[in-house]
Amino acid sequence: MDAIDVIVTKRDGRELSTAQIDWVIDAYTGGVVADEQMSALAMAILLNGMTRREIAEWTQAMIRSGTRMDWSGLPGRTTDKHSTGGVGDKITLPLAPLVAACGGYVPQLSGRGLGHTGGTLDKLESIPGWRASLSSDEMLGVLREAGAVICAAGEGLAPADKKLYALRDVTGTVEAIPLIASSIMSKKIAEGTGALVLDVKVGSGAFMKTVDRARELATTMVELGTDAGVNTVALLTAMDRPLGRAVGNALEVTESVEVLAGGGPEDVVELTVRLAREMLQAAGLDGGKDPEQALKDGSAMDAWRRMISAQGGDPDAALPRAAETMEVVAPATGVLTRLDAYGVGLAAWRLGAGRERKEDPVSFGAGIMLHARPGDAVREGQPLMTLHADETARFDRALAALDGAYAIGEAGEVDLLPLVIDRIRA
Amino acid sequence: MDAIDVIVTKRDGRELSTAQIDWVIDAYTGGVVADEQMSALAMAILLNGMTRREIAEWTQAMIRSGTRMDWSGLPGRTTDKHSTGGVGDKITLPLAPLVAACGGYVPQLSGRGLGHTGGTLDKLESIPGWRASLSSDEMLGVLREAGAVICAAGEGLAPADKKLYALRDVTGTVEAIPLIASSIMSKKIAEGTGALVLDVKVGSGAFMKTVDRARELATTMVELGTDAGVNTVALLTAMDRPLGRAVGNALEVTESVEVLAGGGPEDVVELTVRLAREMLQAAGLDGGKDPEQALKDGSAMDAWRRMISAQGGDPDAALPRAAETMEVVAPATGVLTRLDAYGVGLAAWRLGAGRERKEDPVSFGAGIMLHARPGDAVREGQPLMTLHADETARFDRALAALDGAYAIGEAGEVDLLPLVIDRIRA
Repeated sequence: MDAIDVIVTKRDGRELSTAQIDWVIDAYTGGVVADEQMSALAMAILLNGMTRREIAEWTQAMIRSGTRMDWSGLPGRTTDKHSTGGVGDKITLPLAPLVAACGGYVPQLSGRGLGHTGGTLDKLESIPGWRASLSSDEMLGVLREAGAVICAAGEGLAPADKKLYALRDVTGTVEAIPLIASSIMSKKIAEGTGALVLDVKVGSGAFMKTVDRARELATTMVELGTDAGVNTVALLTAMDRPLGRAVGNALEVTESVEVLAGGGPEDVVELTVRLAREMLQAAGLDGGKDPEQALKDGSAMDAWRRMISAQGGDPDAALPRAAETMEVVAPATGVLTRLDAYGVGLAAWRLGAGRERKEDPVSFGAGIMLHARPGDAVREGQPLMTLHADETARFDRALAALDGAYAIGEAGEVDLLPLVIDRIRA
Repeated sequence: MDAIDVIVTKRDGRELSTAQIDWVIDAYTGGVVADEQMSALAMAILLNGMTRREIAEWTQAMIRSGTRMDWSGLPGRTTDKHSTGGVGDKITLPLAPLVAACGGYVPQLSGRGLGHTGGTLDKLESIPGWRASLSSDEMLGVLREAGAVICAAGEGLAPADKKLYALRDVTGTVEAIPLIASSIMSKKIAEGTGALVLDVKVGSGAFMKTVDRARELATTMVELGTDAGVNTVALLTAMDRPLGRAVGNALEVTESVEVLAGGGPEDVVELTVRLAREMLQAAGLDGGKDPEQALKDGSAMDAWRRMISAQGGDPDAALPRAAETMEVVAPATGVLTRLDAYGVGLAAWRLGAGRERKEDPVSFGAGIMLHARPGDAVREGQPLMTLHADETARFDRALAALDGAYAIGEAGEVDLLPLVIDRIRA
């Protein structure tokens, strides 16, 4: 077996054998296959595709490159959610304790933000004292105590994926659906969850810009999970506009706590409840307490407080606030017909909520509060949003990102994706 | 401009701009674009192709990465030949002095063998004292004195190609016609020849296995040469069987000298004369002495002796011979219907005529002498070929390569490509 043989097979549009897939992932992780060989293979995969069997075996080989977690010692069933990422997508924060409050165990390994989409760990780290890095034993301890844990994936989880992801990032091969699907699913399957709900975002603020591409990715991931024995379902959800009213780390924690307190923006509540029901159903835990009830009776909030405390965070501490604010006002009277998710995400990123390079810090207080949402009537001069940043110098760059990202017109011009576009099962 | 932008353009099937091509070649040569980025781009080029404009600009950018030679100080016109490589293809050896004897100047930069095809420099180095490495001034001196020079390309000639070729070799991207064509033509155009004849080999022993692929490559190269102001023509010629009777370095030199002496195998003579006429015509030098005449009157042999002597070689020295020989005899009586070029080339390589790694030495004496050629009648037990090697241990591996490479049957079963299949002009 050698690298050229594997590359040429895929280059010429043929199917990779099990032995080829196992060898190439193993040899790449071990440094026998060089980066320049793997990037040529990744490009061939992007352009020539992979069969369902190839994707499943590629994913399994990545899982085998590291350790697979095991939660069989827990007294109940595990269920998790993964979002492909969006602007204002803080759903994991209220969702994990909500599902715990309804009887599921949620062992969520999460990531940091890069680019215009936020990262769950960055958001939670705005809570004073909260720690993202836990050992496996600590994870189990938090799960037993709070029913949910959100923490960083350890080094041992799918190291092949870690190496391949960094390579794809610099070689124009990020957009290959088989590689996106196997990257996400190798980590989720290795995480050891018994059931999984995928929130595949669609629109300008998402990785998948069209419903067709999102459906292809969702279907591939649902097949992968199913083939690996994880009960998997996917929702395609709207990311043409931001989710909720808060975009930015601490701002989104505050909004999440509002949801857990029984309030919060309608779309965040609706999607949180829908995903919670899907997670419970996928784990065979439907029929117990309903998520809407758990938001009302305070049990979800209790689970949140236990989860945050168990990871060293103070759920009552004041959150960081940015030093400077600036209001953006409506330039005319009418209806807000458009509020582009990508533009808002880019502006929040430039305000300091995201990082440019992996090693950069984020500003916990930076971001945007939206005072109007698409479909709302606005009057000229009324505040549309408030920008938050640590330095006023950032406002100009954020305003440039917002240029053309919103429009005021007539009610009939509002054209939004439905919040939940489709549901995909194996 | 960044590498991902260039890669994504080609990945998505769009045309690279002039600025993108110039930047990426320059940045790759300078180490700003990494190997793993260039290999992803090479794979995208292989799968999505390039337009005539892109290939021309890519080639020009590679030429600009180094120096371009200039022979305007010579008292006559330059003309050269390039072969895509084959088994027993020693044509350059008699051809260069033959064209010189007819009034052309032949400034040939040549290469070493890798794999089952031989390299012109390896063959000439079997002549005691002969030196492949010359400075530009030495090249000019040999050209003035002998009318022809065959030597190694210096470091300064298309360094981008050198780096890219080594990368393609390990990333499964050798077979991209735009990259093959630009690799060959960047060196030939930088070499400064005024006219060029391409010998594009077709068949099992060649890089191009089919006439269609060979025609595509030939057309691309002829367009490239023409666009760069080099009068270029291509012949598609047979490489389904070996060329001539000798395969191996010193063995091929001996056969070449036979041709220059007015003898030699019919196919080698025919192709040498045809290519010489094409080279002279491309340079506008037809109408002078005819190549057939120059072989008969000894003037081609005189040019050969001057050329070899001018590079330190002794044209009268005995050539190295391998220590061991072994005869392969006909297993039956009939007609030799097939003698596969690849099988013979592989056997000669295993006998020591070629190298496995770039840094390996070759055995000058090793190789194969063919006693029967396809179409010849043979009797059971009659010698078909003699294997030459420095150690008897090599014979078994060579015999394994020859297994199935020849067949004896009836005259009607002989099915060979015509020696010259087609001629391609701009």
